[in-house]
Amino acid sequence: METKLKKDLKIFALGGLGEIGKNTYVIEYKNEMVLVDCGIKFPDNELFGIDYVLADYTYLKQNQDKLVGIFVTHGHEDHIGGLPFLLQDVKAPIYGGDFAVELIKSKLLEHKIKGIKFHQINNDTVVEFQNIKVRFFRTTHSIADSFGVVVTTPEGNIVHTGDFKFDLTPVGAGTDFQKIAEISSEGVLCLLSDSTNSEVPGFSVSEKRVGEAIEDIFQTVDGRVIFATFASNIDRIQQVVKSSLKYNRKMAIVGRSMEKTFEIGRRLGYISAPDEAFVSVNEIGKVPSNEMTIICTGSQGEPMAALARIANGTHRQISVIPGDTIVFSSSPIPGNTISVNRVIDKLHRIGAEIIHHKISEVHTSGHGKQEEQKLMIKLLNPDFFIPIHGEYRMLNQHVKLAEQCGIPAENCFILDNGDVLELSAEGGQVAGKVPAQPVYVDGSGIGDIGHIVLKDRRVLSQDGLVIVTMMIDREKKQLVNKPTVVTRGFVYVRESGDLMKNVEELIKDKIVTELAGGTKDWSSIKKAVIDVVNPFLYSQTGRRPMILPIIMEV
Amino acid sequence: METKLKKDLKIFALGGLGEIGKNTYVIEYKNEMVLVDCGIKFPDNELFGIDYVLADYTYLKQNQDKLVGIFVTHGHEDHIGGLPFLLQDVKAPIYGGDFAVELIKSKLLEHKIKGIKFHQINNDTVVEFQNIKVRFFRTTHSIADSFGVVVTTPEGNIVHTGDFKFDLTPVGAGTDFQKIAEISSEGVLCLLSDSTNSEVPGFSVSEKRVGEAIEDIFQTVDGRVIFATFASNIDRIQQVVKSSLKYNRKMAIVGRSMEKTFEIGRRLGYISAPDEAFVSVNEIGKVPSNEMTIICTGSQGEPMAALARIANGTHRQISVIPGDTIVFSSSPIPGNTISVNRVIDKLHRIGAEIIHHKISEVHTSGHGKQEEQKLMIKLLNPDFFIPIHGEYRMLNQHVKLAEQCGIPAENCFILDNGDVLELSAEGGQVAGKVPAQPVYVDGSGIGDIGHIVLKDRRVLSQDGLVIVTMMIDREKKQLVNKPTVVTRGFVYVRESGDLMKNVEELIKDKIVTELAGGTKDWSSIKKAVIDVVNPFLYSQTGRRPMILPIIMEV
Repeated sequence: METKLKKDLKIFALGGLGEIGKNTYVIEYKNEMVLVDCGIKFPDNELFGIDYVLADYTYLKQNQDKLVGIFVTHGHEDHIGGLPFLLQDVKAPIYGGDFAVELIKSKLLEHKIKGIKFHQINNDTVVEFQNIKVRFFRTTHSIADSFGVVVTTPEGNIVHTGDFKFDLTPVGAGTDFQKIAEISSEGVLCLLSDSTNSEVPGFSVSEKRVGEAIEDIFQTVDGRVIFATFASNIDRIQQVVKSSLKYNRKMAIVGRSMEKTFEIGRRLGYISAPDEAFVSVNEIGKVPSNEMTIICTGSQGEPMAALARIANGTHRQISVIPGDTIVFSSSPIPGNTISVNRVIDKLHRIGAEIIHHKISEVHTSGHGKQEEQKLMIKLLNPDFFIPIHGEYRMLNQHVKLAEQCGIPAENCFILDNGDVLELSAEGGQVAGKVPAQPVYVDGSGIGDIGHIVLKDRRVLSQDGLVIVTMMIDREKKQLVNKPTVVTRGFVYVRESGDLMKNVEELIKDKIVTELAGGTKDWSSIKKAVIDVVNPFLYSQTGRRPMILPIIMEV
Repeated sequence: METKLKKDLKIFALGGLGEIGKNTYVIEYKNEMVLVDCGIKFPDNELFGIDYVLADYTYLKQNQDKLVGIFVTHGHEDHIGGLPFLLQDVKAPIYGGDFAVELIKSKLLEHKIKGIKFHQINNDTVVEFQNIKVRFFRTTHSIADSFGVVVTTPEGNIVHTGDFKFDLTPVGAGTDFQKIAEISSEGVLCLLSDSTNSEVPGFSVSEKRVGEAIEDIFQTVDGRVIFATFASNIDRIQQVVKSSLKYNRKMAIVGRSMEKTFEIGRRLGYISAPDEAFVSVNEIGKVPSNEMTIICTGSQGEPMAALARIANGTHRQISVIPGDTIVFSSSPIPGNTISVNRVIDKLHRIGAEIIHHKISEVHTSGHGKQEEQKLMIKLLNPDFFIPIHGEYRMLNQHVKLAEQCGIPAENCFILDNGDVLELSAEGGQVAGKVPAQPVYVDGSGIGDIGHIVLKDRRVLSQDGLVIVTMMIDREKKQLVNKPTVVTRGFVYVRESGDLMKNVEELIKDKIVTELAGGTKDWSSIKKAVIDVVNPFLYSQTGRRPMILPIIMEV
């Protein structure tokens, strides 16, 4: 490869490329660097016991002096959830919209992180640094106060859309088309755009249409309405509040995250209702069914959320009564379908009516579909294009859309996390790599779980384990007692007949032979035990539990 | 409850109600009983390490003398997969269509089960027993030779649809509307009907339409076509064969189950192509790309199937080359979406073009939608209705459809597995229960895994385990050595600093105290160890591994 002049402008992601989650993007010019978002990712089923996944912050720690600010596009977990972890090591001011800032503050309070400087931004905010300046444009998404970020560098404007749709009849504030046009007229060097729905043709349904479906429900339902949705979708919740007020229903807000965002939403004026419209969860029983709305968490089938506990009959204050209508104002993300269906089935069994997105338009995606993605490209008309926020096939498809919109294929970059793109008007190339492997959080441990621990958990989860404890006399080189075998997650010992006794005999013979053969090396005895027990158990049970020999010396 | 006269006709399921899978239905009249289907269910993510789930066959074992025959509606695993397990204890003749019988025979051969009597049935077959007779009507589904079953009893006709859609332009044989009309004109006491798609409005797409989409692909694609679909969908495969022949492509059949069903399909005449149209997997490289079709398994993202291995670069003979088009002729079942997307992403990354059901009509469901379910009810006009083959919400929705078709609500029965419905023209009631809990198969063990083993596997998968081995002198009542701590799936010991040393000290102190307190009871020492280690580890790591104390006596 020919050596090229190193360019001053670098764009890369620590998370968010080739995946949905942990959005963490860096735009760097000379000695200044901005971070756009700092999210977490929720683990899939193969990450046994992991609570969440972070981006690798090594580069940010090592280049802390360059970091002029953290710019947050909106308050979803996959955009802000990493902040409490990053801010343990890296200090920088946070810029974000009102709702996002409130959510971050509440999160940092929980994590006992203090001393962070916040700047609440709006459509007119301009943040100037030495060589770069940062501006914002309001977008529409499934959470209030979503913004795109414009980083102006001497090389040109870099636009990061954040998550967006073009909701032309939004419930809250709308997309600022004028600001987008203004940026476009200045010229856009590079556009980084949300790829989530790049495989979905068409134009997404407006939140107002969802409001009509919600009103239809309130118009027709006679019993209680139990409305489950994402706690952060404050516009959706405001529509439920509006319909409840119109049909003279009291409301109860149920679930920890719902209570929190509801409080913030009211404080910021996004939810408007008089105090007397609400009852506490303990007072629900005093209100006639046809005058009661319960707004709760759990629309993704989360086992610990309010709705799952109501379905299981384990919620302390709320149980399903005849005439209840339960609305799932959501669509299950892949991986949650089975849990959601399980909750729906349980609710059906105890007699509730269920309304979900397949039978009524009670949900719409927060991410624009193909026509909206093309509209964003056409409005901003960038020289270069980087699809972000998506699994590989989504990024790939988004590039096809960009090509349809006239961006040459060679000006589109599908990057991996960690790929450093150096860019100027002449072109771009991946000129390096920064560490961007996933970092696992389990309990209070960050990054202390690696492949070996995960592999052990997988093996243990499949066939359990067999522990063989042997007491060996170091001097006499002989077994002191018969080896003992303990199992967990393997078989019911009670139902396994002579299996364990046979294993003990087998091991005893093996060790006696090994010791007689003059072995002094305990690790070779352990290996011999594994080599004899493993095939024996497989032949008897068809299973391969983890075999764990423990030698005690006397 | 008033005592009613015990009725002679009983209908119940050992599996298949409130779930998708392990279809196992019993229709019993006096001393005669027929079994309709005997399927397995694939485990969900919560059934750690379980290979598959069976119905409980206790009732069948205890009433073997009544069992006149096993009637198989079609050859899918959730209808035949339980046979090798049932037939270990219960002998009965098997009646089924040609394709199903071939699949069962091949399955019994693998399980080394011999001496089973088979009867190949067709549309005209009548099987007469003492009080009952059994007939069949051809249906359409996503596998060749699917039949509905009619059990004629002195109380009336019981109709079991099997899995069905109404494909009016099928690829293979079509629905026998005349036979259905004939049964209907005799009168139907009770209809048991497939509920899978009861939540989906409309009428399903014909297999012929899929054939057109397949032909479109062959008409336009220049490179190799790698076509992944369900091995059992022999009509789908025949359409690929037809298009391949038309466009002068050689074919290779890849994947164990694909090879097996392909061989059966050709033998039975459902797939027609000359021998010279095929090449072995080793000869693929010799054929020009635009003259090659690879038909393979793995359309559900199964990690061990051909397609996943091709995507991972671990298939011994096949790797993706530029110009390859890979067709997923399937739609992911819930729970498989993430695996399917993972395979698609990997194939995209290595440069393949991907066609799937969302961007082309390359798949259609084998289960009729609402209009087809209503058509079945209207055609058969039963007195009583039992929705089968579905999760609870599907059964529930199917009853709503039945009511729309004029079946009174009180004549519809949503049963659970094990509920015994006694039925006559006067009405029905659940009059008892038979054992119908799921039975887990793990390795060669059947039913030896219960809740405790599964719970242990879950705990082990989440936070791993900590084994504490203590050597205690029985006489002197004291610790012989320092306790040793071994962990698996918990933390990297290397990264855990003094954690394990601290645990060992903690335990030592605790045991010394316990022994000094005069404890003679080892189980109370074990409990004391757990009680001290558990909160300590939680405070240090936020995790709750399984604590397993082992005491060795000297």
